[in-house]
Amino acid sequence: MNYEGKTKIVKVTGDYALLEFKDDITAGDGLKHDVLTGKGSICAETTAILMKYLSEKGIKTHLVEYIPPRTLKVIPLKMFPLEVVVRLKKAGSFVRRYGGAEGEDLPVPLVEFFIKDDERHDPMVCVDHLEILGIATKKQAEKMKEAAVKITLALKEFFERANFELWDIKYEFGLDKDGNVVLGDEISPDTFRLRKKGEIFDKDVYRRDLGDPLKKYREVLELCRSLNSQ
Amino acid sequence: MNYEGKTKIVKVTGDYALLEFKDDITAGDGLKHDVLTGKGSICAETTAILMKYLSEKGIKTHLVEYIPPRTLKVIPLKMFPLEVVVRLKKAGSFVRRYGGAEGEDLPVPLVEFFIKDDERHDPMVCVDHLEILGIATKKQAEKMKEAAVKITLALKEFFERANFELWDIKYEFGLDKDGNVVLGDEISPDTFRLRKKGEIFDKDVYRRDLGDPLKKYREVLELCRSLNSQ
Repeated sequence: MNYEGKTKIVKVTGDYALLEFKDDITAGDGLKHDVLTGKGSICAETTAILMKYLSEKGIKTHLVEYIPPRTLKVIPLKMFPLEVVVRLKKAGSFVRRYGGAEGEDLPVPLVEFFIKDDERHDPMVCVDHLEILGIATKKQAEKMKEAAVKITLALKEFFERANFELWDIKYEFGLDKDGNVVLGDEISPDTFRLRKKGEIFDKDVYRRDLGDPLKKYREVLELCRSLNSQ
Repeated sequence: MNYEGKTKIVKVTGDYALLEFKDDITAGDGLKHDVLTGKGSICAETTAILMKYLSEKGIKTHLVEYIPPRTLKVIPLKMFPLEVVVRLKKAGSFVRRYGGAEGEDLPVPLVEFFIKDDERHDPMVCVDHLEILGIATKKQAEKMKEAAVKITLALKEFFERANFELWDIKYEFGLDKDGNVVLGDEISPDTFRLRKKGEIFDKDVYRRDLGDPLKKYREVLELCRSLNSQ
């Protein structure tokens, strides 16, 4: 059973799945689309380093091993059709919805849920919606919220060691065969906002046409390699 | 201190406030606008009857007395800048956001919060946002949710006596001088969806240009008068 998404191909083989990262980059619900040679391998390795770091912190992820250059061997998960966003600072759709300035601090980490549905522009939902729409039970939603905050604080600490600021990040969770809520998908400049003294190291470079995204993605990978070996 | 909104004028005088209902009707964040002579008095009296009914059910509202034709004497409240919507069936923005069919049952009453902000098209918020944005504490939000569901079930029962179906309804809450969460604003065909065998008795008649809204608003008032005297 294979599934091809905008940026990854999933192949289920026996007890595991292979997650192959494509070189595609998209924005605006898929309306903006390019192919950047090498992006797949950069995002795969970045994800592998960060998920390995998380597992050392006691956080369960789907990662089994990194198969260079662009593939992750993972535990198969039944994914929730959700994007779980944790915000430490105001940015992006938060500012468009509620105002405030990009980069303004939030008093506590904010967790937001969005249904993955490009046609409906990934509508936001609250925990009550998830249960009513049959997407997740209240208990599963609370587990996702709790895990998402814990993961975000761990990653914030990771990047802070090099004086990088994690502004926000998107996760996708799924259920393993025992019904545990486990982190799936990827962690890369495609899925977080990472800044250093005003410099942008994430997909906003692509969204806002601010130069060569891949150069920044490569720098983030180098950063992760270097922080990982410390 | 006076305040004029799209459909009402609030005059604070001593220990009370006067809520004068205008003849204006608006839709689409105020983009559609008309004046329907007599609408103010119809909505004022409808609100008075329904809030009196609620207070008999032990629910606290801002209503002190109805001053014909178009004014309510009310307790002054410090209003939350929120619309609190309770949905019993799918309709309107719920269907636009998440799909499904108009009139489809929801398994349990769903409470949604929207920030009153025409320029940003009244963005939806979850309880966590309310605290982070400084709009309401978690405790106040939970009190609003609880009151909103209780009120909705009481009104559903009221209209069911005449075989009318309450689909959804919007409330505005505020704090009284002792910090209690109290129902303010109005309850009228401007603020709920009310149906009988497919016939529309609410502002959708105006939103969707389906005839004379005032005729339906008058029928709802007659219905409320008649149910109230039973």
